[in-house]
Amino acid sequence: MGKSKKTGNSRVGASSVKPSTNARPSGEGNDSDVGWRRRVVIEGVRPEVDGGRFPIKRVVGQLVVVEADVFADGHDEIAGVIRYRHERKHDWTDMALIHVENDHWRASFEVQEQGIYYYTVTAWIDHFRSWQRDMRKRVAAEQDVTMDLQIGRELIKAAAIRADGKDAERLNAIAAAMDDEDRERTLKTVLGQTLTDLMSPHVDRQLSTTYDKELIVVVDRVRAGFGAWYEAFPRSFATEPGRHGTFRNCETRLSYIAEMGFDVLYLPPIHPIGRTFRKGKNNNPEGKLDSVGSPWAIGTSEGGHTAIHPDLGTPEDFRRLIRKAHEQGLEIALDLAFQCSPDHPYVKQHPEWFVQRPDGTIQYAENPPKKYQDIYPLNFESDQWTALWLELKEVVVHWIDQGVRIFRVDNPHTKPFAFWEWLIAEVKREHPDVLFLSEAFTRPKVMYRLAKLGFTQSYTYFAWRQTKSELIEYFTELTKPDVREFFRPNLWPNTPDILTEQLQHGGRATFLSRFILAATLGANYGIYGPAFELMESRPQKPGSEEYLDSEKYEIRTWELDRPDSLRQLICLVNRIRHENPAFQNDLSLMFHHVDNDELIAYSRHSTNGENVVLMVVNLSPHYVHSGWVQLDLDALRIPTDKPFQVVDLLTEAYYTWEGPRNYVQLDPSSVPAHMFLIRRNIRTEHEFDYFM
Amino acid sequence: MGKSKKTGNSRVGASSVKPSTNARPSGEGNDSDVGWRRRVVIEGVRPEVDGGRFPIKRVVGQLVVVEADVFADGHDEIAGVIRYRHERKHDWTDMALIHVENDHWRASFEVQEQGIYYYTVTAWIDHFRSWQRDMRKRVAAEQDVTMDLQIGRELIKAAAIRADGKDAERLNAIAAAMDDEDRERTLKTVLGQTLTDLMSPHVDRQLSTTYDKELIVVVDRVRAGFGAWYEAFPRSFATEPGRHGTFRNCETRLSYIAEMGFDVLYLPPIHPIGRTFRKGKNNNPEGKLDSVGSPWAIGTSEGGHTAIHPDLGTPEDFRRLIRKAHEQGLEIALDLAFQCSPDHPYVKQHPEWFVQRPDGTIQYAENPPKKYQDIYPLNFESDQWTALWLELKEVVVHWIDQGVRIFRVDNPHTKPFAFWEWLIAEVKREHPDVLFLSEAFTRPKVMYRLAKLGFTQSYTYFAWRQTKSELIEYFTELTKPDVREFFRPNLWPNTPDILTEQLQHGGRATFLSRFILAATLGANYGIYGPAFELMESRPQKPGSEEYLDSEKYEIRTWELDRPDSLRQLICLVNRIRHENPAFQNDLSLMFHHVDNDELIAYSRHSTNGENVVLMVVNLSPHYVHSGWVQLDLDALRIPTDKPFQVVDLLTEAYYTWEGPRNYVQLDPSSVPAHMFLIRRNIRTEHEFDYFM
Repeated sequence: MGKSKKTGNSRVGASSVKPSTNARPSGEGNDSDVGWRRRVVIEGVRPEVDGGRFPIKRVVGQLVVVEADVFADGHDEIAGVIRYRHERKHDWTDMALIHVENDHWRASFEVQEQGIYYYTVTAWIDHFRSWQRDMRKRVAAEQDVTMDLQIGRELIKAAAIRADGKDAERLNAIAAAMDDEDRERTLKTVLGQTLTDLMSPHVDRQLSTTYDKELIVVVDRVRAGFGAWYEAFPRSFATEPGRHGTFRNCETRLSYIAEMGFDVLYLPPIHPIGRTFRKGKNNNPEGKLDSVGSPWAIGTSEGGHTAIHPDLGTPEDFRRLIRKAHEQGLEIALDLAFQCSPDHPYVKQHPEWFVQRPDGTIQYAENPPKKYQDIYPLNFESDQWTALWLELKEVVVHWIDQGVRIFRVDNPHTKPFAFWEWLIAEVKREHPDVLFLSEAFTRPKVMYRLAKLGFTQSYTYFAWRQTKSELIEYFTELTKPDVREFFRPNLWPNTPDILTEQLQHGGRATFLSRFILAATLGANYGIYGPAFELMESRPQKPGSEEYLDSEKYEIRTWELDRPDSLRQLICLVNRIRHENPAFQNDLSLMFHHVDNDELIAYSRHSTNGENVVLMVVNLSPHYVHSGWVQLDLDALRIPTDKPFQVVDLLTEAYYTWEGPRNYVQLDPSSVPAHMFLIRRNIRTEHEFDYFM
Repeated sequence: MGKSKKTGNSRVGASSVKPSTNARPSGEGNDSDVGWRRRVVIEGVRPEVDGGRFPIKRVVGQLVVVEADVFADGHDEIAGVIRYRHERKHDWTDMALIHVENDHWRASFEVQEQGIYYYTVTAWIDHFRSWQRDMRKRVAAEQDVTMDLQIGRELIKAAAIRADGKDAERLNAIAAAMDDEDRERTLKTVLGQTLTDLMSPHVDRQLSTTYDKELIVVVDRVRAGFGAWYEAFPRSFATEPGRHGTFRNCETRLSYIAEMGFDVLYLPPIHPIGRTFRKGKNNNPEGKLDSVGSPWAIGTSEGGHTAIHPDLGTPEDFRRLIRKAHEQGLEIALDLAFQCSPDHPYVKQHPEWFVQRPDGTIQYAENPPKKYQDIYPLNFESDQWTALWLELKEVVVHWIDQGVRIFRVDNPHTKPFAFWEWLIAEVKREHPDVLFLSEAFTRPKVMYRLAKLGFTQSYTYFAWRQTKSELIEYFTELTKPDVREFFRPNLWPNTPDILTEQLQHGGRATFLSRFILAATLGANYGIYGPAFELMESRPQKPGSEEYLDSEKYEIRTWELDRPDSLRQLICLVNRIRHENPAFQNDLSLMFHHVDNDELIAYSRHSTNGENVVLMVVNLSPHYVHSGWVQLDLDALRIPTDKPFQVVDLLTEAYYTWEGPRNYVQLDPSSVPAHMFLIRRNIRTEHEFDYFM
């Protein structure tokens, strides 16, 4: 990297008595002369994250639309391609660039395999097409073109030399036939598309310009781009109240979760829980020894990050749970919380991985003046950092070997960025199907950096974005071009750490609207259940976002069949998400104006534009609200001159609308949202079988 | 450059069984371990043009305000600097970064010398300041800090080892005194600013992160950033009508131009003019041999680009003109038009520098179906391109040796970008005071590229931006942060090629408003005279933007003392520009709302904010217009709670205004503009000498 310190800057300060290799424009090869002679400029290549420092993200089957500003001096015609290849292929595939407008060009390719793709842009002067263009003007002006035909013939003959086989023969034949005295026929040939197409592959690309970066796409499996998560504490899964739940108990709960339509079941840490300074119920620092402790206080003499809490079961039980879940269409996601309880084996085996205080004790976690004496942070500034990093990678590999392919990473922003960049790249090189969700509720630039450096998905501020203007501002930010290329939001209305005041006070209508917003504003979302579907809303104390009697510190028993449970609606919404591709990407979100600040409207559509949905949500838990939605019909490709239908997928109610302005009314005491499927074409008499 | 092809990308695809030198984050040094251990991230550095590929521009005495996003994992305190140096200095100067908000930091430096400056950003974790911060919280919470004081002492002792001399002594003394039993005094010392300041220079910067680019500033002399140009044909300067003007005649005209307040006198090509296919009056292709021809058809057997037209005078006459102009505060700018007449010596000496047609003749310039047989373009794709480039550089050096320091470059967009980038860098390396103005009336991305690669200033679309919305849109584009760093507009209401239809039909009021707009929307502007101040407005034919009886093809005689000449107003406006620093930079332009689409209002201010001007221009040549200007008082730093004065510098009329909304009325039959100086503080009784 030392070499690149002055990348591209050397020209300005360069010293040379003649154009030399010391001072050379970008885009050149190693030939000392060629660099200076390339006339085409390629700049403004998009997508590109931080100048190509980081990859963009896609899932299998998605398009990468590449755009670039491409131009040259003078008036010559230009042609170019984007080149792309999967990491395992040696050869590039070319896609021709199409001119959009104002020197801006575009081409696209589909990523068909997991792993890494590279792409770049190449362009060149096309002298033959310049000649054709000028020739047409000369002919139209009825000028003498004798000399110009000779020039054209030389261009064709030169291309024939670069070509071989059939193409060379055909080109030579055309060049020879230009001696023909039938001027009209000759002109028809040399100005025709057939010759243009024949010449194109054999244009002289010796002085072509290639963009000086090979940009990267990390391509994940489809689940990375679309999924519904369910977080639950397995120890609360026992059928008998108060007992410590086991993986076997979990098996019996899988159908409850799968039937609601979830795709991922995320389990908090499943490892042995430390005893020293163990927290009691409601985070009581004077935890009794019989309290179960927090799963995030990892490690006892029985084992650390690769061990399983003995009360949950055996490694075989865990592998079996993964298999059983898979049979129901569920994936198990594990928590990666790289921190230790004072009883963790690392503390004795590797005291050098922790900060030692002057008295020889190990530094516990702190946020002064708060102390977390049940947690020892790992010291990533340790002199023995390489051993530590390798060990932590082994932890991940261990769980991959058990069958885990999704990890939710606890507080990644408190460990070095370089560590994550290394770890994720290392793991995905061997296992490109592994996904990492970043749980970094921190400052925006830090969250973005973690996403850029490799995290597949990221938690967001969604829980705290509650008013219409907050939601619109935040999701506009998340879906703007520079961000959406690397940041995949995963939206959670609640987590074991976050019971928002809105949920505490809003009642059923708020649980419903927050669920629907999470499930429809993004392709990936999750809930912490059963607390969510059972509308658990009691805070530990007023003003706190902690749950009262939080499962983080105790075993809870949940009455899953309570008649007021939201599971039916959750099931319905998840089914609609699965049936409508519009919900399965994050690229098309668009807000529409409603003349009522308690009603929010937004549309999404499938990649091919066929499946279009319109959401309208009443944000007030208290009042019926109505208003006029102002649709951008052009963007939705809805004809402006005839009616269209909107079908509420929640209620199966049909509405016939016409034009951009349409009335909605939503009552929070039933369902506070419309999930409209837009049907652009309504049948008329013209479609009636016997009309004609 | 081959090395940098995958700059920054290697991590994703990297293979390593341990953190290795093959896969390393940016910002590292050569030490294989250190790169991975750097915890601070530096990104979003501004200003930066195309990822550092191109320099930013400044003139001597201006500030470079550098901003960056700087952050790390966790909660440690961060410190950093921008580092800068002039190319001739080896050592960097540091300026401390100040945190603005949201991980965004800023620092600035003044460029004091012509030439090239480099700048970059370095930042690091400051463990001592983290410790101080936590310590304050612990003390406030009345916790036992015995252990923490020991940790702090170790930090101070470690800094003492890195320090030397007095600082080391003082730090050791403080560390020793911490054993003191006077806890309160110890805390006062270790938490005090004195110790913070003493520790800062000795922080452990071994793991600091340095931004991986050294960015570049090209610093020009002041004239690059502020000047008024006057273009005139010297052959029309004869005192006797019809005679061919000489450089000696020019000398007598210098005071006429200098008294109007211009800074640069730009002369079209002064070289021998070709005879073959010489154009006659009004671009008549059947030019008679006695016609004077176009100065842009350069070269005869008497010489080419380094020769002087014999009718203009001798090289000594030219050097004398430069000296005489200088005595009047005027610089002479020459035209660089790299093209040849068929009679140019190059055609015989270097036929290889031109395109040869199949019949052995040389290809003349064309824009099919138009032919320009009096011009042979140089062939930059020639195999002998290096000799051509070196020769063209010699042309520039020749005129520099005669005393020329400003060049207006004719149609640079028809020669390769790489040529200009090389030529300008080559010339400025030896002669950093040389300025180049790009005459590229072409597509925006091409114009921007030329500016990026080194042109000091650029012609613009100003002549064709005439309505209020056009002007606001265009100048908002030109002054946005990404553009203004590299693009210095030079605004021309007319040129010998451009007599806009607006000027043809708008009469005196339009000449006045266009002049005032040019002179006040940008720091650099120019007019083609005496056509402009004498309001020459007859086109060659209806619908054409060519002047009738254009000086490009004939000698004109101008009646400079005509009573309706605009010279008095031009003189006044140029004086106001010189007296008010607000007009002397392009960074502060801001539009203000007026409730009348024929009135445009904009403000500018000096770099220090002291000198503030407000322009209001009536764009209609026909009608008196009035309206209410809505000022952004905050941006103008005008107090909102008391009146302020605006003084029209054109008329010396005083107005007392109050609040953001103020009335204006402009009559195009007198002067269609206000040039207000804003006086923020009006004297009141409190300022009266005897008030107290």
